[in-house]
Amino acid sequence: MTLPQLGSLSLGDLQAAIEPRLGQVETEMRRMIEADFPLISDVNEHLLRMRGKMFRPTLVLLADEATGGPSAHGATLAAVIELIHLATLVHDDAVDHSVLRRGMPTINALFSHQVSVIMGDFLYSRAVVELVRFGDLRALAILARVTNEMTIGEMRQLLAHDPLAFTEDQYDLLIKAKTASLISGACEVGALGAPERERLVLARFGETLGMAFQIVDDLLDYTADESLTGKPSGLDLREHKVTLPLIYALPRFSPSERRALEALLRNPQPADAEIAAVVASVATHGGLEQARDRAQRLAMQAEEDLGLLPETAARETLRASLTYVLERRR
Amino acid sequence: MTLPQLGSLSLGDLQAAIEPRLGQVETEMRRMIEADFPLISDVNEHLLRMRGKMFRPTLVLLADEATGGPSAHGATLAAVIELIHLATLVHDDAVDHSVLRRGMPTINALFSHQVSVIMGDFLYSRAVVELVRFGDLRALAILARVTNEMTIGEMRQLLAHDPLAFTEDQYDLLIKAKTASLISGACEVGALGAPERERLVLARFGETLGMAFQIVDDLLDYTADESLTGKPSGLDLREHKVTLPLIYALPRFSPSERRALEALLRNPQPADAEIAAVVASVATHGGLEQARDRAQRLAMQAEEDLGLLPETAARETLRASLTYVLERRR
Repeated sequence: MTLPQLGSLSLGDLQAAIEPRLGQVETEMRRMIEADFPLISDVNEHLLRMRGKMFRPTLVLLADEATGGPSAHGATLAAVIELIHLATLVHDDAVDHSVLRRGMPTINALFSHQVSVIMGDFLYSRAVVELVRFGDLRALAILARVTNEMTIGEMRQLLAHDPLAFTEDQYDLLIKAKTASLISGACEVGALGAPERERLVLARFGETLGMAFQIVDDLLDYTADESLTGKPSGLDLREHKVTLPLIYALPRFSPSERRALEALLRNPQPADAEIAAVVASVATHGGLEQARDRAQRLAMQAEEDLGLLPETAARETLRASLTYVLERRR
Repeated sequence: MTLPQLGSLSLGDLQAAIEPRLGQVETEMRRMIEADFPLISDVNEHLLRMRGKMFRPTLVLLADEATGGPSAHGATLAAVIELIHLATLVHDDAVDHSVLRRGMPTINALFSHQVSVIMGDFLYSRAVVELVRFGDLRALAILARVTNEMTIGEMRQLLAHDPLAFTEDQYDLLIKAKTASLISGACEVGALGAPERERLVLARFGETLGMAFQIVDDLLDYTADESLTGKPSGLDLREHKVTLPLIYALPRFSPSERRALEALLRNPQPADAEIAAVVASVATHGGLEQARDRAQRLAMQAEEDLGLLPETAARETLRASLTYVLERRR
């Protein structure tokens, strides 16, 4: 197995070949969320401005092109996937009472908590309306299952606050439901026109890629450079969220390190120094390396799946997306 | 036009003939929301205990039987409708930070605000999963449109706090989106097996019935006997919600009554006496009678639509449901 060694590979590199289609995706998104209601239009404008990296639509389009596309409906399905993603972000921020996302104020901060709950429902129901219009029950089945799985992931997240009880298996279930399910769904609906065998290969590729993506996200929370990510490191610990680096390092904590962690988890507003100490313990005991190894193994597994697809330029870009996921700094 | 003069007609009377099928609806609901996750099971148990009057499933089954049913899928569609209704109640309570619903603690009060946002998403996505399994794109189209309309209704509700600017037309748009859309959807999916003409008649019947239902709801807020409804009167005014009785009475308010209303709306926590004074002004100036007249006219309009359906026992029960809606005390 040879992952490309491109430390500086950016998402833009992956998106270069599909740039015009990503423009269509944005046009489709605008059409789908349009509402003859001023408050909703205001929220929509903000959502489109804080628009993310379009990673999931990119995967839809690449999966499409790796399985016989470009097909006429690729941009529509990619837009639906991003709408569902936006809906979950808006509700996540409402649930967490977050005030910032990607360095911009969240809907709940800028409008209100009420608006963000309703707006998430608005976006999700518009996504369903579009899928019905698209008229393929398989796409509806995939994405209904995925969105339901994501809510179960959110529930798991709520309960993931006891590190002494939270295992790697439980962490896997959490990230599969919370993150990998939608990324898998993106790859699967991208391959909707392909034979079932290829569609299932892409669904599995997406799930493994999605798990690696979330592990790297959780790693970045430990290692992040605030100037790049727009948020300080140790945010998960501040919110008492236990992720893979801590799960790995915990058995090697000294009694005093374990007491420091327990104190942090009892403290509703842990001090920066408390967080920095636990972050340091996790690093010292190899939690970061071990989590990075796990992400790398997942990426290798995902790469094997790509070998089952026909040779296309899009398949090679999907391969490069594994490198992007592993190497990204924000 | 002759509405039956049965002042004591109860929902139980309407439901007598379909009692066994309502049992099936509950079995279907249990199956649909089952989750292999303890927190969700706990919330589900609570939701089923606080289960409402099953008015919407009753309409699905009656519409089904009024158009050639009973059909095999009636109970399934009725359960989906009630699931969507539950999802909106859970999110409404989250949005309003309500602590009581039907005299029982809300999900946000009993569990947390976070759980109620996630749980609404869970219920709604399960409803979509079931509709996909049912496999009729028309049912999906109707209910995707309806749920999207309901979110727009919720947005309208947020903005409906300025009585001097809030007109009857805006109130109509609000109650159509918030309440009548799902009741119309219930009647329409009940008639899914019928010729399109009958299906559209039932959709329109449901919309008019739903508007009357919400107007009576808003009236009950002014006239409610706390021992029956489980909530004190004037709750909407306390939350600065402007409804039809006030819209009608306002032009006849004296300058001092208008000043009292404006003071109430500026006061984040109005006193009971302030609320009672405005409730009295609305009654004095005929706002309650005028709103009741409007509900009655809507019911007559809905009754005319029933005349377009074949003569069946279920059609007569739908006719009686109009009386129930007008005469209900809670």
